Amino acid sequence: MRPLLETLFARRAQAVIPPPVGAEIAGAVPVVTSFTFGLADPRLFPKADLARATAEVLAEDGDAALNYGGTFAGLIEVVQQLMRARGVEAQPENLLIGYGSGQILGLLPQVFVEPGDVVIVEGPTFMGAVSRFAAAGARLISIPVDGEGMVVDRLEEVLRELARQGIPPRFIYTIPTFHNPRGCTLSWPRRQKLLQLAAEYSVVVVEDEAYYDLRFVGDPLPSLAALDKEGWVLHVGTFSKIVAPGVRVGWACGHPEIIRRLEMFRSEGSLGPFLGRVVARYCGEGRLESHIQLLIRRYREKCHLMLEAIAQCFPPEVKVEAPGGGFFIWCELPPPLSANTLL
Amino acid sequence: MRPLLETLFARRAQAVIPPPVGAEIAGAVPVVTSFTFGLADPRLFPKADLARATAEVLAEDGDAALNYGGTFAGLIEVVQQLMRARGVEAQPENLLIGYGSGQILGLLPQVFVEPGDVVIVEGPTFMGAVSRFAAAGARLISIPVDGEGMVVDRLEEVLRELARQGIPPRFIYTIPTFHNPRGCTLSWPRRQKLLQLAAEYSVVVVEDEAYYDLRFVGDPLPSLAALDKEGWVLHVGTFSKIVAPGVRVGWACGHPEIIRRLEMFRSEGSLGPFLGRVVARYCGEGRLESHIQLLIRRYREKCHLMLEAIAQCFPPEVKVEAPGGGFFIWCELPPPLSANTLL
Repeated sequence: MRPLLETLFARRAQAVIPPPVGAEIAGAVPVVTSFTFGLADPRLFPKADLARATAEVLAEDGDAALNYGGTFAGLIEVVQQLMRARGVEAQPENLLIGYGSGQILGLLPQVFVEPGDVVIVEGPTFMGAVSRFAAAGARLISIPVDGEGMVVDRLEEVLRELARQGIPPRFIYTIPTFHNPRGCTLSWPRRQKLLQLAAEYSVVVVEDEAYYDLRFVGDPLPSLAALDKEGWVLHVGTFSKIVAPGVRVGWACGHPEIIRRLEMFRSEGSLGPFLGRVVARYCGEGRLESHIQLLIRRYREKCHLMLEAIAQCFPPEVKVEAPGGGFFIWCELPPPLSANTLL
Repeated sequence: MRPLLETLFARRAQAVIPPPVGAEIAGAVPVVTSFTFGLADPRLFPKADLARATAEVLAEDGDAALNYGGTFAGLIEVVQQLMRARGVEAQPENLLIGYGSGQILGLLPQVFVEPGDVVIVEGPTFMGAVSRFAAAGARLISIPVDGEGMVVDRLEEVLRELARQGIPPRFIYTIPTFHNPRGCTLSWPRRQKLLQLAAEYSVVVVEDEAYYDLRFVGDPLPSLAALDKEGWVLHVGTFSKIVAPGVRVGWACGHPEIIRRLEMFRSEGSLGPFLGRVVARYCGEGRLESHIQLLIRRYREKCHLMLEAIAQCFPPEVKVEAPGGGFFIWCELPPPLSANTLL
């Protein structure tokens, strides 16, 4: 490129940082069965029902669906229902509907992160999230995760040390339920401790609940957002695992001051009127609830099959934990065997 | 909100700037017939064909449409064809497909504008664009528009004066064809002069061609992008006026270094696999071309009707110009009558 063009870019745009990953994930599928990502079974995508929903929307509400307009109110109501099942009475000012939870996670550093700011994440965690935080210049501090979720005692040590150094962490990113990739769920005492630490150290907690509804056994624990009485929790949800990732609809639910700021950095202004109506129509009349029940049955079967295969085929020294739901089973190999060696 | 939360926001997010307008436009329609915006006739939205396209996509390509994935290659090909008709052989690295041209216009200041930077616009112009530039802190300098488009002699004076002061304008935003709201088309000599000035003063030209394909009479002039041999022009297009605004698909076409930077600030990563396939499928097999021919016939009729009504009902002192295409007719009232008085 000619140097003259370069001088016209704003400072923030002078270096080219690769755009967030995620789009490339699907390309890996046909070659091998990849266990790297939270990929749904395409045979469970509700193709016929989405086609029917689209036809109905265009026949009955086509003028509005195809015109300019804000995020469809009916879709906001669907998300309010999903949040109600998670113990949260969300008002429209608590909600931002975006193009996938990936967009929400990409907007987060715009609102919270200056280059060099500290963001606390889990280790291991969802790479699609932390790559976005890192691209924005966040300094990532990683808290270990065990079978009961984030090790909050370690979090407390880190928060205390940061406070001693006068460094305010911008937010804590956590996947409390059916963790990607750890499979675990944050225990009840740790949930309380995490929220108590958030309030004590004044840190926002970003709770990514992509798998919340896909529970195989037992009763759900209250979401962090449901337990939070002070507005520290930003809950992130998605239709990717309960409808289909290709529709690209996700949401954030939290304090209106955070929501307004996320909205401010979303250059397209709202979710498209067509897309919002199609997804809302699909979800209506109990279809989403019964589809979620179908998904639970199928993914529970898959999980059992995989656990049986592991029991039969893996050496007995491999430690495996049966997850309570979601897409991930965590295995620990006996040293000195490593995942790379196995691969 | 609690002050502690406020201290966690990044500097860029401390003040809340209202999100870009656009979403609210449609709400104004039912009350009165608004001539304020470039609103299409909903009766011309291709509802049945979009429903059919969606059903076909989900039946034949549903696994990919509903999975993770990048912007659909078939949609990029549709945009390449549209750009070819505008005289530009675009490669994929010249193109960014986004959620409406509004998103592209919203990303522009992220790439080019630091608060206080100069952006040159037309007066009058499309408020949905300049409100986005202004929200990013751009200092707007307005160049008048007459029946032949932007008054490029005035632009030259402004560029010379800015150069004298050592101020590099970040870009020039222009609507060359069937101007919103001026109705005019930038003349051939002015196109050449504008590009010569862009090169001489090293300024990017953002050419917004929302109405390019809706020509009632005569042959199209070459787009600025087609005339540009040095990569100064960023062409912005949209499916809003030729398919429907509610699908929210638009594009930018230009120098790969600009495209890569626009892409970098788009937090959602790509256009949704479902939406991209639906729009591409709708456009295929000549459907888009014949739909555009239908739109031209209908909007030409509407334009003639409106010109007849103006001739019959407006005082003879009102100056009116018949546009060559698009959605806008420009009237000038005889002083001291003003538009506000008339309203």
